[in-house]
Amino acid sequence: MRPLKIAHVAPLATRVPPARSGSVQQMASLLTEGLVAQGHDVTLFAPGDSVTKAKLDAMTPRGYWHDETMWPWEMYELLHLAAAVERADAFDIIHVEAGYYPMSLAFTRLSRTPVSQTVHHAPGPAETTLWRRYPEAPFIAISQEQARLLAGLNVVDIVPHGIDTNRFAFRETPDDYLLFLGRFTPGKGPVQAIEAARRAGIRLLLAAAEEQYYREAVAPLVDGKEVVYVGEVDFEVKVRLYGGARALLYPVQAGEPFGLVLAEAMACGTPVAALDRGAVREVVDEGITGGVFADLDAMVAGLDAVMALDRRRVRERAVERFGVATMVDGYVRAFRTIIEQWRSR
Amino acid sequence: MRPLKIAHVAPLATRVPPARSGSVQQMASLLTEGLVAQGHDVTLFAPGDSVTKAKLDAMTPRGYWHDETMWPWEMYELLHLAAAVERADAFDIIHVEAGYYPMSLAFTRLSRTPVSQTVHHAPGPAETTLWRRYPEAPFIAISQEQARLLAGLNVVDIVPHGIDTNRFAFRETPDDYLLFLGRFTPGKGPVQAIEAARRAGIRLLLAAAEEQYYREAVAPLVDGKEVVYVGEVDFEVKVRLYGGARALLYPVQAGEPFGLVLAEAMACGTPVAALDRGAVREVVDEGITGGVFADLDAMVAGLDAVMALDRRRVRERAVERFGVATMVDGYVRAFRTIIEQWRSR
Repeated sequence: MRPLKIAHVAPLATRVPPARSGSVQQMASLLTEGLVAQGHDVTLFAPGDSVTKAKLDAMTPRGYWHDETMWPWEMYELLHLAAAVERADAFDIIHVEAGYYPMSLAFTRLSRTPVSQTVHHAPGPAETTLWRRYPEAPFIAISQEQARLLAGLNVVDIVPHGIDTNRFAFRETPDDYLLFLGRFTPGKGPVQAIEAARRAGIRLLLAAAEEQYYREAVAPLVDGKEVVYVGEVDFEVKVRLYGGARALLYPVQAGEPFGLVLAEAMACGTPVAALDRGAVREVVDEGITGGVFADLDAMVAGLDAVMALDRRRVRERAVERFGVATMVDGYVRAFRTIIEQWRSR
Repeated sequence: MRPLKIAHVAPLATRVPPARSGSVQQMASLLTEGLVAQGHDVTLFAPGDSVTKAKLDAMTPRGYWHDETMWPWEMYELLHLAAAVERADAFDIIHVEAGYYPMSLAFTRLSRTPVSQTVHHAPGPAETTLWRRYPEAPFIAISQEQARLLAGLNVVDIVPHGIDTNRFAFRETPDDYLLFLGRFTPGKGPVQAIEAARRAGIRLLLAAAEEQYYREAVAPLVDGKEVVYVGEVDFEVKVRLYGGARALLYPVQAGEPFGLVLAEAMACGTPVAALDRGAVREVVDEGITGGVFADLDAMVAGLDAVMALDRRRVRERAVERFGVATMVDGYVRAFRTIIEQWRSR
């Protein structure tokens, strides 16, 4: 099949790939480079300091996270989207990675080429009620859980997040600690992770940026011995932390549409112990890459079994399911479906 | 000349005309009804509870100020704009009253009919730097002051705000007080109004919604005798307050692009004493409708002369300059210029 001419629109917030945090940018980069590697003609719409093998169309030299005069950010994001749609004739498809909410919907009926979108959060009913003004607008869901939340919209395909498994080094023999990695919010369950680790009698390392919820609810539980806060970590340290952990604790309280840290930990060979919320069951293969538990009691009781899983097999399954190639193939399949739908309108 | 087919897009925030506050909605209503009265074919894009003689195209039954599930408001505003642009073929021109910032710019090159806009604030250089990505996008400025701030953009015409002078009853003989009316912000100068009134030895009434700045900086200066806070007032009370005032004090600290309360007070026959900032000099005819002063000392010294101005002549000048008919004529002239520019691209 002939290569596709693809406009891939990342947020204008920060460069692609991101210097530090920015999971949307990370995914945008992996997908862009993966599409280029497959021979597609990709134009990446992103800040000018992005690094890519695609053609780069940059409205501004850098992202609005780094320049407080670039305000309001919504205007930047919007005109950045418009810049891609204005070039619609040059592309077979426009795909938008929506960092916040899919402003791209506004162009659904004004573009001369299909505008499609991936959202990266778990949209609520108030949001999707509005979005259903455009029932034809193509969405690519990142999980069945998210597809369920997008009911009534044109969910063309479900393509799980990919990760660059080459960069997540496998480690056969871990150190003697458990790991919590993610933002300090009630929804991510850091307090529950501490409780589980204490009850299991295993040291817990917490890695995330210090936020208000950390100071209010988490810090009082940190003793520097059994519960250790290591701060916000960069990529290299993150990989080392994953690899050294006997298990990743993921006692998530609010439903998440994916769970990128699960895939990342697994790629390092580290099994995961997670609560059964949101997309967790889709990401974790029970008894192979981890355990999925109904509540914290069950998680504590099942932790030994999780830590006993074969780390090499954990890694292999992660590569198979969340490797970049799988994601890229999924997106190309989705793009071709969207173009087909558009032509047969 | 043949009547125009006009899409007039008000914000989706609250109904047109507004139930209480909402100067953008007020102007949108006056302009819409004035255009209809002149025989133009107008479609008003506004919340469903709006009241108009135009055709009403309502995306939602009411505005997002009144329903917290209508969030984020930017998505509502954006899809509301898109709804008008999607119907571009039905109109000679689309005109957008931008309540916050002109998201309409995103449609400049995607619409099949010209998209024009009026902004209602004083844009800063950071904003207009971004907007200049669309140097062809037609703006209608509300004052020379605002046109100056819009330098480098396609400012097609300058049309001052109109007010419904029939609703601002003239009063020949006022009571014995001065009036401050407007929001309690440092930029509006309520503290300076109090100082001026005290020094002049005349009672001051303050009318505005209670905000944080009121509690922090203004309330301690209110004694209930010489400085009286009357709260937020509805339209009828506002007109009575204007009419009863010997003068409106407008010691504005930050440059404003217009000054609607100046025109409203004048329409009631009440002269104004204002500081020389922003568009004040364009709205006030010195020695006829009020005085424009360099600083507060000059304002206090000149207050007697302002209060001595002929109230009937103040009213007449206000009707002449800020009557709805003048605004409507100005917009029709601007619309025809924009359509002409578009055709000769």
